[in-house]
Amino acid sequence: MIDRYSRPQMAGIFEDENKYKIWLEVETLALEKMADLGIVPKSAAIALREKGNFDVARINEIEAEVKHDVIAFLTSVAEYVGEESRYVHQGMTSSDVLDSSFAVMLTQAADLIIEDIEKVMSALKKRTLEHKDTLCIGRSHGIHAEPTTFGLKLAGHYAAFKRARDRMIAAKEEISTITISGAVGTFATIDPSIEAYVAEKLGLRVEDIATQVIPRDRHAMFFATLGVVASSIENLAIEIRHLQRTEVREAEEFFSEKQKGSSAMPHKRNPISSENLTGQARIIRAGVIPALENVALWHERDISHSSVERTILPDALVSADYALNRLAGLIENLLIYPDTMMDNLEKTGGLVFSQRAMLALTQAGIMREDAYRIVQRSAMEVWKSKGALTLRELLEKDEDVTSKLDKASLDNIFDYSAYTKNISYIIDRALAD
Amino acid sequence: MIDRYSRPQMAGIFEDENKYKIWLEVETLALEKMADLGIVPKSAAIALREKGNFDVARINEIEAEVKHDVIAFLTSVAEYVGEESRYVHQGMTSSDVLDSSFAVMLTQAADLIIEDIEKVMSALKKRTLEHKDTLCIGRSHGIHAEPTTFGLKLAGHYAAFKRARDRMIAAKEEISTITISGAVGTFATIDPSIEAYVAEKLGLRVEDIATQVIPRDRHAMFFATLGVVASSIENLAIEIRHLQRTEVREAEEFFSEKQKGSSAMPHKRNPISSENLTGQARIIRAGVIPALENVALWHERDISHSSVERTILPDALVSADYALNRLAGLIENLLIYPDTMMDNLEKTGGLVFSQRAMLALTQAGIMREDAYRIVQRSAMEVWKSKGALTLRELLEKDEDVTSKLDKASLDNIFDYSAYTKNISYIIDRALAD
Amino acid sequence: MIDRYSRPQMAGIFEDENKYKIWLEVETLALEKMADLGIVPKSAAIALREKGNFDVARINEIEAEVKHDVIAFLTSVAEYVGEESRYVHQGMTSSDVLDSSFAVMLTQAADLIIEDIEKVMSALKKRTLEHKDTLCIGRSHGIHAEPTTFGLKLAGHYAAFKRARDRMIAAKEEISTITISGAVGTFATIDPSIEAYVAEKLGLRVEDIATQVIPRDRHAMFFATLGVVASSIENLAIEIRHLQRTEVREAEEFFSEKQKGSSAMPHKRNPISSENLTGQARIIRAGVIPALENVALWHERDISHSSVERTILPDALVSADYALNRLAGLIENLLIYPDTMMDNLEKTGGLVFSQRAMLALTQAGIMREDAYRIVQRSAMEVWKSKGALTLRELLEKDEDVTSKLDKASLDNIFDYSAYTKNISYIIDRALAD
Amino acid sequence: MIDRYSRPQMAGIFEDENKYKIWLEVETLALEKMADLGIVPKSAAIALREKGNFDVARINEIEAEVKHDVIAFLTSVAEYVGEESRYVHQGMTSSDVLDSSFAVMLTQAADLIIEDIEKVMSALKKRTLEHKDTLCIGRSHGIHAEPTTFGLKLAGHYAAFKRARDRMIAAKEEISTITISGAVGTFATIDPSIEAYVAEKLGLRVEDIATQVIPRDRHAMFFATLGVVASSIENLAIEIRHLQRTEVREAEEFFSEKQKGSSAMPHKRNPISSENLTGQARIIRAGVIPALENVALWHERDISHSSVERTILPDALVSADYALNRLAGLIENLLIYPDTMMDNLEKTGGLVFSQRAMLALTQAGIMREDAYRIVQRSAMEVWKSKGALTLRELLEKDEDVTSKLDKASLDNIFDYSAYTKNISYIIDRALAD
Repeated sequence: MIDRYSRPQMAGIFEDENKYKIWLEVETLALEKMADLGIVPKSAAIALREKGNFDVARINEIEAEVKHDVIAFLTSVAEYVGEESRYVHQGMTSSDVLDSSFAVMLTQAADLIIEDIEKVMSALKKRTLEHKDTLCIGRSHGIHAEPTTFGLKLAGHYAAFKRARDRMIAAKEEISTITISGAVGTFATIDPSIEAYVAEKLGLRVEDIATQVIPRDRHAMFFATLGVVASSIENLAIEIRHLQRTEVREAEEFFSEKQKGSSAMPHKRNPISSENLTGQARIIRAGVIPALENVALWHERDISHSSVERTILPDALVSADYALNRLAGLIENLLIYPDTMMDNLEKTGGLVFSQRAMLALTQAGIMREDAYRIVQRSAMEVWKSKGALTLRELLEKDEDVTSKLDKASLDNIFDYSAYTKNISYIIDRALAD
Repeated sequence: MIDRYSRPQMAGIFEDENKYKIWLEVETLALEKMADLGIVPKSAAIALREKGNFDVARINEIEAEVKHDVIAFLTSVAEYVGEESRYVHQGMTSSDVLDSSFAVMLTQAADLIIEDIEKVMSALKKRTLEHKDTLCIGRSHGIHAEPTTFGLKLAGHYAAFKRARDRMIAAKEEISTITISGAVGTFATIDPSIEAYVAEKLGLRVEDIATQVIPRDRHAMFFATLGVVASSIENLAIEIRHLQRTEVREAEEFFSEKQKGSSAMPHKRNPISSENLTGQARIIRAGVIPALENVALWHERDISHSSVERTILPDALVSADYALNRLAGLIENLLIYPDTMMDNLEKTGGLVFSQRAMLALTQAGIMREDAYRIVQRSAMEVWKSKGALTLRELLEKDEDVTSKLDKASLDNIFDYSAYTKNISYIIDRALAD
Repeated sequence: MIDRYSRPQMAGIFEDENKYKIWLEVETLALEKMADLGIVPKSAAIALREKGNFDVARINEIEAEVKHDVIAFLTSVAEYVGEESRYVHQGMTSSDVLDSSFAVMLTQAADLIIEDIEKVMSALKKRTLEHKDTLCIGRSHGIHAEPTTFGLKLAGHYAAFKRARDRMIAAKEEISTITISGAVGTFATIDPSIEAYVAEKLGLRVEDIATQVIPRDRHAMFFATLGVVASSIENLAIEIRHLQRTEVREAEEFFSEKQKGSSAMPHKRNPISSENLTGQARIIRAGVIPALENVALWHERDISHSSVERTILPDALVSADYALNRLAGLIENLLIYPDTMMDNLEKTGGLVFSQRAMLALTQAGIMREDAYRIVQRSAMEVWKSKGALTLRELLEKDEDVTSKLDKASLDNIFDYSAYTKNISYIIDRALAD
Repeated sequence: MIDRYSRPQMAGIFEDENKYKIWLEVETLALEKMADLGIVPKSAAIALREKGNFDVARINEIEAEVKHDVIAFLTSVAEYVGEESRYVHQGMTSSDVLDSSFAVMLTQAADLIIEDIEKVMSALKKRTLEHKDTLCIGRSHGIHAEPTTFGLKLAGHYAAFKRARDRMIAAKEEISTITISGAVGTFATIDPSIEAYVAEKLGLRVEDIATQVIPRDRHAMFFATLGVVASSIENLAIEIRHLQRTEVREAEEFFSEKQKGSSAMPHKRNPISSENLTGQARIIRAGVIPALENVALWHERDISHSSVERTILPDALVSADYALNRLAGLIENLLIYPDTMMDNLEKTGGLVFSQRAMLALTQAGIMREDAYRIVQRSAMEVWKSKGALTLRELLEKDEDVTSKLDKASLDNIFDYSAYTKNISYIIDRALAD
C-alpha cells in the first residue's frame, strides 16, 4: 500500500486508531455484559465506557517491551481507566479481541468495496443507455466478427460488476462472525451469552466453532472473491486499452489539458488509467494465494496468518478500493467515438455479414457445408483485398449465389438492423433489478 | 490428472464421450425448439433426436483436418443423421454449444463435489459424536494451551466442510448458465426463446449477457471457491499429520496388514494419506490463478481460456473429488487413542490450568498484572522441570497464592470439567443445520 | 496433460516405462559399486545387469497390495532376477531411487526444453534477419510512438529466449544432483562412494546434504524458472495476437487451406495458436506456486510433495515443450505484411516524428518546455484530424517553428532513416554469441 | 510494507529520496557523456553536476498537475539548475531514467538480501559446528526414522541458504542492466555510447535490446528467485516450530524475561518468530505471480507493470530483508536441548535400529522379504507397547533372529555410532567453499 494508490476511506480502516477503537468497543461491550451477568462490578463497566481510551504511541512503547499487542493495548487502557480496569478482558483471550475486531474492519471494508462497485455499475449503466444503439464491430480473437452495439459491450461489463457486487455481499457474510470464547474456544472461562451480546451489538453473527481464532477459510473466501472482482476490473481495463489503440481509437480515456503523455513524444495520449488498473488487478490478486495458504493453521491455531493479514490482505483491499474508484471515473469520463466505430465496422467490406449470407444460402436449400464454402471463397477474396472489394459485389458475381438469392434477399443479408433487433431485449434483461 | 489420483465418476465427466453426448443434447434441444418455431422442418428435429449420434474417433480424424472441434463434431453427426442434418446448429455459434455444455459438465462436477463434501461431513459428524467428551489438549502455536475435547476438534472441521458445501452450492449456481445467442451474443441469427427453452430443459439459467462466450468471471469464482475447499482439506490433513507424529500419537491413519511404511525401516507407519491430501490441496489450488487470468478475454472473446479449461481446471476437479473421498475414508477409519490424549494432557504438570489460577487470583482481589506474574513464575519452573514438578504443588508453596486461595479454591482451579462444561453447547450449535 | 497438448518426446519421459527403466539403472549401478566394494557378491551385480527387468502391470498389481511403489518395483525385478536379487537396494532407502531417478527425468526434460527454446531462437533469428530493415511503428501503451523495424521487434524476443535458454541451463544444473545416502541421509547403511559412482555414471552431481530426499528448493527453482519462460512465451504470443487484429493486420498466423476459423463466420482467420499459447503459459505457470509450497517438508522429509510432482509439475513440462514447439512453428510460418506496416506507420500524419521536431527546436535554442508545447499543439491537431492533416504541414504554418527551422531542417526531421541508423548495431549485439 | 516488518536499510532504497537521487545521477552521467561527445555544452554538464538537486514535495506538487513523474522531476531539477537544464534528458525517454534507476535500486536491494542470507548462513554454520555430534532422531513423515545429528539438520539448511545466496547472485545479474536508448529503444535520438558510459559508471551492463523498457522477464526471474528463497525461509521456520512443540521441545526460540506468551495463559512460550517467518514467506511469494504477469507488455511497452513494481515487488524485498534478519537472530539465539533430543531418540524402544536389524539378517543369509517381516513383527509389538518393550529384547526372544545373530551381532546393530560415522564427512562437504 502506498499513498499514490490509496484512498483514506479504505486506508483509514486499517490504521491503528480505527483498530484500537474497535478493540476498545469489543472489550467494553464484553465487560458490560459481564456486569449484567454479575461477574464483574457494574462500576467497572461504567468506568470503561466512560473513561476508556488508549494512546497509540504508548501502546507501541509497551509492545516493544512485552512483545504482545493486546497486553500492550490493555496496559494503555488501564492507564486511562485506573483500578477498575482489572476486570477488563477477563476470561478472554487475545484472539477474542483481535479476530472479532478484524471482522468489524473487514465488514467496514466490504461495505466500501460494495459501494465502490455500485459506482462502477452506475457509470456503466449511464454510458450503456447513452450508447445502447451505437453500432460497432464485435470482435472475437481480435478479429472482426459481427456487429454489436457499444451499449451492449458496456452492459456486459455492467452485468459482471453486478455479479461482483453480489459476490462481495456473500463474501461480507462470510467474514461477519465474531468469537468471544476464550483460549482454544471452549468457553471455559467466559459465558457464551457474552459473545452473543457483543455480536448482536456489533451487528454480526457468532462463529459456530472458533478454535481460539475464527477459521481462516472465511478470510480465504473473502480474498478469493476479491481476486475475482480484480479480474473483472482487468477485463474492462483491457477492453478500454484495446479501444484506445491508435489503429482502433473507438474510445479514449479523458485527457486533461495539462496532462503530458510522454516526456519525449508530445503527441502521445496513453490509456494510463486502464493500464494502471491492469496492474492493480495483479496487486489485488496477489492476496489470493497467501489467503489460501493461511487456512491450514496448526491445531487450534498458530500465528503464521497474522503478518499476512497485517500487510498483504489490507493492501489488496486498499488497491481494490482505489481501482474501483478510478475505474468508475474512467468510465464516467470516457471519450467515445461512434463515428470511428462506424468506420471500423465498414473496414472489412461487408465481411461482417458473411454468416447471414451463409444462412440465407442454407435456407435457400444449399447444404450447410457447401454454403460455408461458397461464402468463404468470396470472404477470403475480400479479406485479401484490404478494403478494395466488398462481399456483396463478389456474391453478386457468384452464380452459386445468384441462382439462389435475388436482390431483395441480398438487401436483407446486408442489413445492420438484424444485429440490433434484440439489443434492447438483452440490455433490459441485464440492467433489470 | 493421472489415474492414480482420479475416480471414474469425476474423470468420466470430462471425457469425450460425455462431452459430445451433452453437445448432441444441446443441439437437439435447440433444433426441437427451432422446429416448434417453424424455423426448421419438424422432420429435422425428429431425425436428430432419433438418429443423432457421433463417433469420437471420426471426430478426431476430421478435426485433425479442419482444426475446429465443433465443425468436426457436426460433420460426424451429419454422417449419422443424413440430409436433414443441415438444419442443425443453424444460427448458432460454436460457443453456444461449447459453453452451454461446459456448464452442464461443471454442474455435474459440482454435484459430485457437493456429494463428496457431504461424505466428509458425515464421517466427521460420526467421529465427533463418538469423541464428544474425549479430553485432549488444545494447542496454540504447537504449544499446549488448555484442554478441549477431540469431538470439538472434529466438529470444528465439520463446520468448515459445512461452509465448504454451502460455498460449492453457491459456486454451482455461478456456473449454471447457458447461452445460445449466436456470434458475439446479439441473437442476430437465433431467437432468444430457443436459449430459454434449452436452458429450461437442461435445468439451467440463461446468461444475462454472453458475448459469444459465458463470461469467465463465473468460472473464476467457481475455481476460486474450489481453492478454498482445498485449503480446508489441507487444514484437516495437517491436523492428522500432527496427531500422528511419533511424540504425539493421539491418532493414526488406518494401516492395513499388508501395507509397508518404508522399504528400509519395518517399524514405520506413516500418515501418507494426509500427506497426499496436503499435496492434492496444492494441485487443486493450482487452478485458481489460471482461472483468474482467464477472465480478461479480448473484446467479445478470445480463446486463450480454452486450453486452461481443457486441462488444469478439470484436473482441479478430479483432484478435489479424489481428495475428498480419500479424506472421508481417512476420517471414517481413523485410529483414535484417548489414553494417549490423556497422557499428553498431563505431560505439563498442570500448566494447562494456569489461566484458571490467574483468574482465581484476580477474583480474589489481586491486580491482573500481578496475578499474571505470580502464576507465570511457577509456570516457568514447572515448564523447565519437564514433568518433575506440577503447577499445583508450586502454587501451594507460594504465599502470594495461599494468602488468597484455600484448598477448595485450588481444587476448583485444577478441575477439567471447567473446560468441558460448554462443549455440548458448542457441538450442538455446529452440528445443527 | 492431455494428448491434444503434448508431444510424445516429453510425455514419454514421465511414463512408467521410462521411470522404471531409470530406477533399474540406478539400482544396477549402485549394486555394481557395492560388488566392487565387496559388500555384495559380484554375481549379484552381474545377475541384475543381465537379467534385470520389470513389468509395469505386475508392479501396479503388487503396489495395490503393499501400497509402496519401490517395494512393488523391487518385487517385480526379483521375479526376473531370482535369488540374487536379495542384495538389490541394500542399505538404500526408497528416496535414493526415486529422487535420483527424478533428477534423471528432469534433466532429460530440461534438455528437451533447451532444445525447444533453441528452435524458437532459430526461427526468430531467421525472421529477424529477413525483416531487419522492415519499417514498422513502435507502440507504447498501444499508441503509436516512433518507428522501429520488425526485425528489431523479433530480435527483442530472440534475446528473451536466449535468456530463457540460459536460465533453463542454470535450472537444469539446479536439479542435476542425486542422492544415495540411506534413511535420513546419514550414509549409516551405505558408503558415500556408491553415491559418487552412480552420480558419475549418470553424468550428475551428488547432493551436498540430502535428508533422505533431495531438497525441494532445487525443484522450486526449476519450476519457477519454467514459469519465467512461460511468461516470455506469453509475451511473444500477445505480440502476434495484436499484430493480427483486424485493424492492425501486420502479421498473421499461417492458415491452411482446409482450416475453418469459425463455424458461423466463414471469413474468420483467427490467431488461435497464439491464443492457445497464452493459455499454455497460464498452465505452465500453474506449477510455480505448488513447487514453492513443496519446499517446506517436515523434518527430514514428508511425502506431500509427491502427488504434486507426479501430476502438475510434469504437466508444466509437457505444456512447455508443446508450447515452445508450437511457437517455433508459428514464427517460422508467420505471414508478415510489410506494406501494411508502412500503411499503419503513416496513419498518424507524421506524428511519429514529433520528438525529432521537439529536439530540433530545442537545439535551435528554444527551452525544452516551450518546444514541447509548440509541437504538442500541432500534434494534437493532427491527432484529432484522423489522417486529414500532417504534422509537417502544420509545423510549416507555425511561426514559432519556421522562425527557427528551415526547409532542410524540416526534411531532416521527417526522415525515417534516423530511426533505423542504429538498428543493425542493436540487432548484431543481440544476435551475437 | 508496514513499519513493523521492515528495516530502514531496505525500506530506504525504495523511498523517493533515494529514487530521485539515482535519477539525478543517471541524468547527470548521461549529460556528461553528451558533453564529451559535443552534443551539449560542457557548461550544462558541469551545472547539473554542481547544482543538480530536487525537492520531493515540489515534485509531488508538479506531478499532481502534469501527471507524469519524470517531467515533474525534471521541472524540479530545472528550478535548481536554471537555464542550462534544458539540455538535460535530451533524446532520452522517461523509461531510460526509470528503468536504469530501477536497476540500481534492485541491485542495492539484491546486495542487501545477499548480505542477509550470509548472516543466516553464518548463524547456521556456527550452530552446526556446535551441534555436529549432538544425536537426535531423524524423522520422515513426522515419524521417527533413524538417528542423525542436530548439526547435520542445521547443515542441511546451511546448504539451502548457500544455494539461496548463489541464486540471488544470479538474480542480481539478471537485473543489472540499464538502457538509455530513447523511445522504443532505437537509439534514434541518442548515441549508444552514452548508454555504455552510464552503465560503466554505475557498474552495470547495457541491455541488449530494450524496447523502451528493460524486458520484464528479468524482473520476473528476480522475484521468482526471491520466492524460492522465501520457501527456504519457510522450511527452516517450520522445522523450528516442530522442534518447539510441547511434545518435542528439542529447541526453543529465545524468550526474553519481559516477554509474554499469552494474555491468558502465563506458561505459554510460543515460537512466534518462526510462525511470523512462515507468514513472511507467504508475503514474499505473493510477488511471484504478479511479476510473472508483468512480463507480457503490449508491443514495445505498456505501463501495467508499474503499479506492481511500485508496491508489491518492493514489499517482497522489504519482507525478505526483514525475514532473513529475524531468522539469523532466531538461529543465533536458538535454545537447543540435547538432553531432550536424547530422550526423544530413545522413546521408541530401539525401533530406530530396525533397519540395521533387517540388514544384519539379510547379510546372515535371510531373504530380504523375510528379514523385513521378521523385524516388522517385533517392531509392531514395540510400537504398540509405547515404551514398555524394546526392539532388542523382542529380537532376542525370536528364534528366527537368534538362529542367525549372536550377541556381538546384536550389540553391533544397536549402536548409535553407525549413524554418525559419516556425519563429519557430510557436514564438511556442505560447509566447504
